Amino acid sequence: MKKVENDLLLRVLNGEPAERTPIWLMRQAGRYLPEYQVVRARHDFLTMCREPELSSEVTIQPVDIVGVDAAIIFSDILVLPEAMGLNLVVEEGRGGPRFTNPVRKKSDLSSVHDADCENDLKYVGDAIRLTVSRLNGRVPLIGFCGSPWTLLAYMVEGKGGEFAHARAMLYDDPSTAHELLQMLTSSAISYLKMQHEAGADVVQIFDSWAGVLSPSLYEEFSLRYIKQIVDSLRGEVPVIVYAKAANHSLKSIRDLGASAVGVDWTIGIDEAAGKIDSVLQGNLDPAVLFAGDEAIRSAAGRVLSLAPKGRHIFNLGHGVLAGTPVESVKVLVDFVKQWNAFEQKR
Amino acid sequence: MKKVENDLLLRVLNGEPAERTPIWLMRQAGRYLPEYQVVRARHDFLTMCREPELSSEVTIQPVDIVGVDAAIIFSDILVLPEAMGLNLVVEEGRGGPRFTNPVRKKSDLSSVHDADCENDLKYVGDAIRLTVSRLNGRVPLIGFCGSPWTLLAYMVEGKGGEFAHARAMLYDDPSTAHELLQMLTSSAISYLKMQHEAGADVVQIFDSWAGVLSPSLYEEFSLRYIKQIVDSLRGEVPVIVYAKAANHSLKSIRDLGASAVGVDWTIGIDEAAGKIDSVLQGNLDPAVLFAGDEAIRSAAGRVLSLAPKGRHIFNLGHGVLAGTPVESVKVLVDFVKQWNAFEQKR
Repeated sequence: MKKVENDLLLRVLNGEPAERTPIWLMRQAGRYLPEYQVVRARHDFLTMCREPELSSEVTIQPVDIVGVDAAIIFSDILVLPEAMGLNLVVEEGRGGPRFTNPVRKKSDLSSVHDADCENDLKYVGDAIRLTVSRLNGRVPLIGFCGSPWTLLAYMVEGKGGEFAHARAMLYDDPSTAHELLQMLTSSAISYLKMQHEAGADVVQIFDSWAGVLSPSLYEEFSLRYIKQIVDSLRGEVPVIVYAKAANHSLKSIRDLGASAVGVDWTIGIDEAAGKIDSVLQGNLDPAVLFAGDEAIRSAAGRVLSLAPKGRHIFNLGHGVLAGTPVESVKVLVDFVKQWNAFEQKR
Repeated sequence: MKKVENDLLLRVLNGEPAERTPIWLMRQAGRYLPEYQVVRARHDFLTMCREPELSSEVTIQPVDIVGVDAAIIFSDILVLPEAMGLNLVVEEGRGGPRFTNPVRKKSDLSSVHDADCENDLKYVGDAIRLTVSRLNGRVPLIGFCGSPWTLLAYMVEGKGGEFAHARAMLYDDPSTAHELLQMLTSSAISYLKMQHEAGADVVQIFDSWAGVLSPSLYEEFSLRYIKQIVDSLRGEVPVIVYAKAANHSLKSIRDLGASAVGVDWTIGIDEAAGKIDSVLQGNLDPAVLFAGDEAIRSAAGRVLSLAPKGRHIFNLGHGVLAGTPVESVKVLVDFVKQWNAFEQKR
């Protein structure tokens, strides 16, 4: 087992003492960084996902530039459905990725198969191996995948938006939805295990579209499958579950038994801590980074004050927004790192 | 006072007995209707808002075509900020309306003034008068405006999206936000009173962007101002408050004392009824209308079964989605209208 120099994240996830709250940011490798834009200007998005050299380069950028306590491998949740048979395209200036062969009815399932992660997603494993080697133990590396529901939403709709057809499938044809969700679940388990074997110290499941479902549909079509994934990985690798806009279901999310639960910014982290006894990750409003430095420190200090001591990983409540000033991200990271010393002086 | 033939909506809002649950749908006048598209093909969106003849025509279409129990005047929440000095443009195929002179800092407030509703929004009053005359008492007419927060979000950002600058203003420069919100509140009160005087039987306040705020910011920057509006209209005209994705604040929303509260689809209407003692409006998932007829009836029946008897107005949890089949909307409306008779037979 490799040794990680800055292992704050791992210690907090394992319930061990840590001298301060670790911080990393969802979408920390991204277009708010000029250094990312330099790479992006020369390569299209999917090439950056598929070329370990490029993926690794932008994965490490925020560790060097803003000083976060963990790296998260640069990739996209939609590469898994692509490996399951869907045709993924990202056209410049055409509003996000899409699938040209969406799954709208049971017969469309014939084009979907379990992912052969060792082969078809080998490039992700290679990117992780290269990144681990280049990080050389400085900070832990996080792998990730989308939740089965979030991936189904994209696979059925074919693109981002309101996911009306995906939601309609749950009412209209639940058996097709369950069949696809079960395939996604077993592929996600293989995919996350492969990432861990390649060197990811932690994995995160992104349920980015949790919030478009009612609580009862959310239990049936999302949490049930996330639970299978968490159960399959327990004891192997720490798992963080991040469900956006699903605070109505925090008690059920607690029952998943994940190592940590990501919390968006539409709930006080103290209220979330009252419902969830595991480690919490979050929950600063990403828009705060568009405010001035004092407002950033004040809002971050509020999260740190309200968060449960010893079981908190600092993060935003969602990804870094496009257009976020890099200097503001640095102000935030520096503030969080100095918080414990600052607190003791007060 | 004019007499309304089908006054189910008004009776439910007044707490009087009604023989069945009334139904209308947010965005019922819109692009899912071929008859709307015929009008829209000949006129741009803002012209349709500004010409009482056109606005009235599309307002009445869903009463004739799908048989809803109320009309809602065709307009846009952004015509109020336009009347307050912002320059509103809607360019075809350029992704929604925008303001060319957004309010980003205190000095930008110099371009904002109270709306002179009697003059600058006279066209809305004219559209309401014409619609009331054409409806000839068949169903009640609903007027509306955006909540101060939702309008500020658009005024600060200049366009739709994540509203990062608007959210940042609340952390960075709350005094400018409060100043603008107070202006919006007094203009919204004048605007809704003008709509009522022109003939609107009911008014609805749309807090469409409630969900991007944390509960504490939501109390301070949205509910506080909605309360002023509700208080100013109490006893004059029934007020429905619809806040999307703000179920974390249902108890505070109850304390507004509105005649009815709109409920989105991310909470069971029975759970909402346990927190709110007024009339509830909602809460069918709009995506259900992309499912088959039996799934539509089943999902609508579930809402009707769980809703509080005698204090429920059937609606979707959000607006009718683009691409919704008209036939499905008819299936829904017919089902809800027949529900009480159907229930008695069971």
